Amino acid sequence: MRLRGAFWKEVMASLAKARGGLRGRRRPAPDEDIRDVCRTLLRTRGEASVVALARRALDAFGRLDAAGRRAFFEFLARDLGPEPAALESAIDGYHAAPGPETVTALARAADPPRRELLGLFNTSPNGMSDLLAMREALLDLLPAHPELKPLDDDFLYLLRAWFNRGFLELRRIDWRTPALVLEKIVTYEAVHEILDWEDLQRRLGADRRCFGFFHPSLPDEPLIFVEVALCKGLAGSVQDLIFGAVEPDPEADTAVFYSISNCQRGLVGISFGNFLIKQVVYELAAEMPGLRTFATLSPIPGFRKWLSAAMRENRLADEGDLGDIEDPGWPADHGPAEDAEPRLLRLCARYLLHAKRGRLPLDPVARFHLRNGARLERINWMGDPSPPGLQQSAGMMVNYVYDEADVVANHEAFVNEGRIVHARAVGELAGKPGDKRPARRRSRRKARLPRVPATLPAPAVSGAPARR
Amino acid sequence: MRLRGAFWKEVMASLAKARGGLRGRRRPAPDEDIRDVCRTLLRTRGEASVVALARRALDAFGRLDAAGRRAFFEFLARDLGPEPAALESAIDGYHAAPGPETVTALARAADPPRRELLGLFNTSPNGMSDLLAMREALLDLLPAHPELKPLDDDFLYLLRAWFNRGFLELRRIDWRTPALVLEKIVTYEAVHEILDWEDLQRRLGADRRCFGFFHPSLPDEPLIFVEVALCKGLAGSVQDLIFGAVEPDPEADTAVFYSISNCQRGLVGISFGNFLIKQVVYELAAEMPGLRTFATLSPIPGFRKWLSAAMRENRLADEGDLGDIEDPGWPADHGPAEDAEPRLLRLCARYLLHAKRGRLPLDPVARFHLRNGARLERINWMGDPSPPGLQQSAGMMVNYVYDEADVVANHEAFVNEGRIVHARAVGELAGKPGDKRPARRRSRRKARLPRVPATLPAPAVSGAPARR
Amino acid sequence: MRLRGAFWKEVMASLAKARGGLRGRRRPAPDEDIRDVCRTLLRTRGEASVVALARRALDAFGRLDAAGRRAFFEFLARDLGPEPAALESAIDGYHAAPGPETVTALARAADPPRRELLGLFNTSPNGMSDLLAMREALLDLLPAHPELKPLDDDFLYLLRAWFNRGFLELRRIDWRTPALVLEKIVTYEAVHEILDWEDLQRRLGADRRCFGFFHPSLPDEPLIFVEVALCKGLAGSVQDLIFGAVEPDPEADTAVFYSISNCQRGLVGISFGNFLIKQVVYELAAEMPGLRTFATLSPIPGFRKWLSAAMRENRLADEGDLGDIEDPGWPADHGPAEDAEPRLLRLCARYLLHAKRGRLPLDPVARFHLRNGARLERINWMGDPSPPGLQQSAGMMVNYVYDEADVVANHEAFVNEGRIVHARAVGELAGKPGDKRPARRRSRRKARLPRVPATLPAPAVSGAPARR
Amino acid sequence: MRLRGAFWKEVMASLAKARGGLRGRRRPAPDEDIRDVCRTLLRTRGEASVVALARRALDAFGRLDAAGRRAFFEFLARDLGPEPAALESAIDGYHAAPGPETVTALARAADPPRRELLGLFNTSPNGMSDLLAMREALLDLLPAHPELKPLDDDFLYLLRAWFNRGFLELRRIDWRTPALVLEKIVTYEAVHEILDWEDLQRRLGADRRCFGFFHPSLPDEPLIFVEVALCKGLAGSVQDLIFGAVEPDPEADTAVFYSISNCQRGLVGISFGNFLIKQVVYELAAEMPGLRTFATLSPIPGFRKWLSAAMRENRLADEGDLGDIEDPGWPADHGPAEDAEPRLLRLCARYLLHAKRGRLPLDPVARFHLRNGARLERINWMGDPSPPGLQQSAGMMVNYVYDEADVVANHEAFVNEGRIVHARAVGELAGKPGDKRPARRRSRRKARLPRVPATLPAPAVSGAPARR
Repeated sequence: MRLRGAFWKEVMASLAKARGGLRGRRRPAPDEDIRDVCRTLLRTRGEASVVALARRALDAFGRLDAAGRRAFFEFLARDLGPEPAALESAIDGYHAAPGPETVTALARAADPPRRELLGLFNTSPNGMSDLLAMREALLDLLPAHPELKPLDDDFLYLLRAWFNRGFLELRRIDWRTPALVLEKIVTYEAVHEILDWEDLQRRLGADRRCFGFFHPSLPDEPLIFVEVALCKGLAGSVQDLIFGAVEPDPEADTAVFYSISNCQRGLVGISFGNFLIKQVVYELAAEMPGLRTFATLSPIPGFRKWLSAAMRENRLADEGDLGDIEDPGWPADHGPAEDAEPRLLRLCARYLLHAKRGRLPLDPVARFHLRNGARLERINWMGDPSPPGLQQSAGMMVNYVYDEADVVANHEAFVNEGRIVHARAVGELAGKPGDKRPARRRSRRKARLPRVPATLPAPAVSGAPARR
Repeated sequence: MRLRGAFWKEVMASLAKARGGLRGRRRPAPDEDIRDVCRTLLRTRGEASVVALARRALDAFGRLDAAGRRAFFEFLARDLGPEPAALESAIDGYHAAPGPETVTALARAADPPRRELLGLFNTSPNGMSDLLAMREALLDLLPAHPELKPLDDDFLYLLRAWFNRGFLELRRIDWRTPALVLEKIVTYEAVHEILDWEDLQRRLGADRRCFGFFHPSLPDEPLIFVEVALCKGLAGSVQDLIFGAVEPDPEADTAVFYSISNCQRGLVGISFGNFLIKQVVYELAAEMPGLRTFATLSPIPGFRKWLSAAMRENRLADEGDLGDIEDPGWPADHGPAEDAEPRLLRLCARYLLHAKRGRLPLDPVARFHLRNGARLERINWMGDPSPPGLQQSAGMMVNYVYDEADVVANHEAFVNEGRIVHARAVGELAGKPGDKRPARRRSRRKARLPRVPATLPAPAVSGAPARR
Repeated sequence: MRLRGAFWKEVMASLAKARGGLRGRRRPAPDEDIRDVCRTLLRTRGEASVVALARRALDAFGRLDAAGRRAFFEFLARDLGPEPAALESAIDGYHAAPGPETVTALARAADPPRRELLGLFNTSPNGMSDLLAMREALLDLLPAHPELKPLDDDFLYLLRAWFNRGFLELRRIDWRTPALVLEKIVTYEAVHEILDWEDLQRRLGADRRCFGFFHPSLPDEPLIFVEVALCKGLAGSVQDLIFGAVEPDPEADTAVFYSISNCQRGLVGISFGNFLIKQVVYELAAEMPGLRTFATLSPIPGFRKWLSAAMRENRLADEGDLGDIEDPGWPADHGPAEDAEPRLLRLCARYLLHAKRGRLPLDPVARFHLRNGARLERINWMGDPSPPGLQQSAGMMVNYVYDEADVVANHEAFVNEGRIVHARAVGELAGKPGDKRPARRRSRRKARLPRVPATLPAPAVSGAPARR
Repeated sequence: MRLRGAFWKEVMASLAKARGGLRGRRRPAPDEDIRDVCRTLLRTRGEASVVALARRALDAFGRLDAAGRRAFFEFLARDLGPEPAALESAIDGYHAAPGPETVTALARAADPPRRELLGLFNTSPNGMSDLLAMREALLDLLPAHPELKPLDDDFLYLLRAWFNRGFLELRRIDWRTPALVLEKIVTYEAVHEILDWEDLQRRLGADRRCFGFFHPSLPDEPLIFVEVALCKGLAGSVQDLIFGAVEPDPEADTAVFYSISNCQRGLVGISFGNFLIKQVVYELAAEMPGLRTFATLSPIPGFRKWLSAAMRENRLADEGDLGDIEDPGWPADHGPAEDAEPRLLRLCARYLLHAKRGRLPLDPVARFHLRNGARLERINWMGDPSPPGLQQSAGMMVNYVYDEADVVANHEAFVNEGRIVHARAVGELAGKPGDKRPARRRSRRKARLPRVPATLPAPAVSGAPARR
């Protein structure tokens, strides 16, 4: 039997009463200064009354307006940092006798009291939820107030400890899931909007799977979730998946991860996606031994922006007329009159293989999956002709394949050498860098085959140009 | 639906296979150097493969012998501390421009990589359980190896974050609890040994309550638990409670906390008892509105030792012959021939009220409950005449009362001023410090009353002598 | 751990294989005669293979068309009745020596084998669900085929045993309930249609309660559910409840049961409503001690039909012009020009108190609540001006109050003497039977008071006219 | 959320109060005549108050002494049978126009009201548990009071409906099971006594499985459970299993069902064992694909009794001196001096294959497993040399093998033709009926082989002698 509620409700009342009885009226006043409460909290650490004090502080934060929040964050950043004298003395101690003890003493002196305060906030009922909301407010201020960055570092430090992979729980989300959680799936779906409950029901149908990571402190809040379709062969069109049938295909051999959404803005900077994909691959493989391929169907969010910039900079002169690329409906509306498909596929392949930020791919989704050890498998013409799909990816979508046997090697090749493991066809599409001959016929043939066989060809490997 | 098992089993196999396939035989060898695995782990942070690497490191630790464990801890303490050059540079940066940014940079440079390593261990299945075992091994070494103290500080730092009050879950433990957990209650009961399952069943009977704190990472392991008896009036004899009836008394008005046991040696230094008592008080008050008094029945573990020392040092010359205090059965066997009860009650009251360590009581149990805000209510003659009871507490036991209305004030008086709030009768028992007249008759009367009325008299307050 | 799935999936395959191995191809053929399977089932009773045979029979039933179903029901009704020779012999035995043994033997001989067959169907996975669907099909045929009534009696006999109150489980339905179940609440709501998920969410809000009975064999299927609103004072308008606020009123003192829906047509003839209302009253009283009144807000489904008939038969000549009562929007559209409210309230009160079927009220909803021991409390003018509300109840609604202290006495007065316990104001509205003076002013006053005080006046009692 | 408690507690109080308020003191008096309560119950059927009335009746039954119980049962058997006049009239109606309607009317008239009363008892909280206790009391009286048999038939009729296979739930029982349930496993183990919790823990170890059937009305009460050991090869000695290791053998290929215990005496006459064994076979096969053989290790409870009788009747003159068969320790103590093993194995094989009751085996355990479709596989010399083992089975034990592919055919051969499917070696042991040559050498060889290979030889088939 799990017990929680009674205590939390009462603790407030009792505390108010107890203190009131002792010193006259001390009921947590709406205009109580949150800074005073925080200072009391830090003095009280370790006592059961911190629970109630933490609640008071968080409630007080909730009542602050924008200016009050900024002032509070500045108080944390400035006034609740390490004690300068103690820090100086620890530095002296370290210099006098460098060693584990003195360095530990130095670390302790440099550890800001605001970290402990954030930990005390967490003792309160719903404390974690309020802490994430507090960090969201901080993130809003950060661009204009870089001096608050050290405070955000402390948030991140603690959240990393509290959201350690060891505390996360994978749960399947389906039509048996409480409405309370499903409602949040609808809200948080970031990639392909869920229109209504019918749409949601289709995405949780018998031919689908949905999994999320949950944390014990936020039992009804997914941290991240992934939507998977079980198909025969690799799916290339996300519209087919979203509006398609819900009858399970007994010959399904491919799991297509077509949407991954992070849910908690307050956890920005902590990555769960890689862990989630890998664990879901294993869960699905255990449930359905017939599955042979695990792949994504992903957008190419940076492609069109890159293309615009390249055109503006006249770097695509050889590509001929690409149509009115600034038209929102491009390329469907005013794209290149003929050969649109092979020409854009070729450009997309070049973008994915050769456009870099430092040593790594420019495209953020490519960077994510390739770093995870996936293989760039296929570019799908008109995989997402929706307005956002045209807007970002010129309507194309990419499959990244997670192949259990290669994922560690792929990852290491990528992070150590910048190598992008990709299917031969993608390499041929791109041609050699600088090679002007269009890889037209091959891409055509590819484009005509809507689905690749489940047994995938051996991947080719393209080194990063810088390495050659 | 909660999913866990499949992933964890497979991740090991797959990793072994994947790496083996790439580079020949890389199956985690029994003689693999744990330090190499740890270094790889720190390089790999953030990748899904850390889960498997962490498992390998923990398994390797499990295979180490005593010397190997010591060497590993020394490696952590010495080699995985902050980078000296980076630290020096951060110190310079701070000195050059003291401010939140540079102090944060300094804190980061002083943060030892071994902390991150411990966090990575926790990503592994059962990682927390292995981490606690690792700390137990470290605690064993600490007395002889004080140079490992900085490492233990890092353990404690992380464990405090991970076992934040906000993550603990209170659960009732009763005859519906899985045998797996009950078995641990039997094992961990530290105060009054549980002899067998019949004894356990009596302690979980209808006139009892048992509650424990649990943590999501250790779902079948209580961290701490408390045993409570529901009585009519304040109980003074623990034997009556342990071997007494299991029929609930409909007129029960008192909850007696007669045993609190910490379960995880690996969590030494993190205190849960205060939170547990307070929350259980609230749960019980909510369940049974008829309860008016919440009190402990506690040993006085330091009394007899203090008495022996005082006698050796001739500080009790005025007390007359106390019998053969070194006899294990004393005072039952060779105690003071007459007036044993009033004389020892008086000495015990003096011990509790006036024997100090610094400003606080010498007795550790008294220190714990008084710090929590309890009131020293009654000393019970022969409350525990068992051999351990005689050995430590000369057979006496103490009731500390947790009175919701006063607990905050009592706590503050205690920590700020060293004041011990106590019932008038206890103060009279002790007499004024230095007053030689025995408080005989009063204590007699007390001793004849086995139970105090549920409506307790207003407490007297005794200041610490040092303050006067 | 609950285990179910594996067995059921395998049992089919194994049985098919085992039998196939013995006697050639015996895979359950789509054209297998369901009657043969049933005969085999009856021979096989008690063996583990009945589970698979039952599944085959139910699957075969699912493939039948309308004619096949009728033929199958006729087979059950005619061919699986008691054995005439054995029955005759049991009658002879009883006549020879009347007594418990011979009467038991007679009962056994008269017990039709089809009952046992239905019991064997239930051994199959999802058997209960299929049995309920089978009875639905039977109910469809019954009006045109009264010769199947004996078969329906057997269904009812077994379903009464299986859905014994002792097997039902009350569950609260709220926003934490799985979508699977909520979806059925939307489907089954029979009184006030739920438009969409937003509407549902409002009905499960913090100022509402919803409870249903569930059965272990149909874990995701409510049998019946009730929707309750927590109000300050007695609610008279169902539109206010349906579209009203979802903030809980801390001063709520009244629970208004505004919708009760049966969900399983296959259980027609088994009544759960009375049990549900009583149990929900107790659950709510335990949860919220502030609740003082438990009442319904109910339609008067027979009122307008009775009124039409009475007008056609010229029994309401004294009532003056009531407007165009056949107009669907009556009385809102073409009702009596003046004094509509008091005149119709009076007629409604008369209908409820004096229109009878035998000794009991003609109105089915009145009959249900009064039989349960409720008191007829108040008639609410324009309590439901929706089209169905106008259509059935001329827009009015009734509150029936369940008063714990009187419910048994009210019930007994009703079933034994036909007495309708009602509030004095309702009796005054109706006037004495035959009394022509309109109770106008009083009803006016009533109608102006939208809410009655929570402390209700002592009820008046109106005997059934037949008794006088 | 499941809700139950509040209602049931309150319903009693409220009923008492309500009635008391109406008619003076009507609190359920200890001396209230249970027969009056039952008559009221039958009048009240369908109303919510039956719940409270049923409770009163069951409580009144609990207070009856032996004479009172007998009187109550006689009241049920004699006074709550079918109404003679109505029955006679239904017989006349049937004779006048035999057909489904009149036969149904006859069945209804013959259906005794006490059945309905038992159903009403079941509406009460814990009603099922009390009903089973009531039937236990009835079973105690039955031998001396055969006139109560018709009443027991009604119990059985209803219990069969309520404990229909469709309502049973298979649960795994292990060290995570609540102590409340485990305690009952210890109590109910009927075959090989569980000495203490350590013994229990061994039986729930990693090399074991335990499964039970549960019913929704008795959530903490197993109806029947089976204990299984996972072995390499067929186990012949139950002592090895009971006191053996708890390390799982990764090469385990055989599941040995070594104990099956019925738990509810009140359910005597309703068989769960066959269903349980079959379902557990499927669950184990699904969990551990490496399992190839599913077999029992069973006692031969009728063997020694049969042997004694045969010796007394001089039917074993040819067998030579068998020692002092009346000695409790026989054959270990005073058995046949030489060749004990082959001679007794031969006699046991003959007993199992040829000793009959009607067409079926005399031995009840043999009858049970052979009827279920098992194969008589092996007789194990000194499989259970414990005192009860010697007492009943002369220390021998039998393996019956459940082979998925043959179980239906075996069952049909057994029930239709009385054929006992058995391993060739058992047939050879027995020799032909009347054949005096001892099957000595073969049995020797068998006895020396402690384990048969997992791939079992094709079974021989022995017809029942009577059939030839």
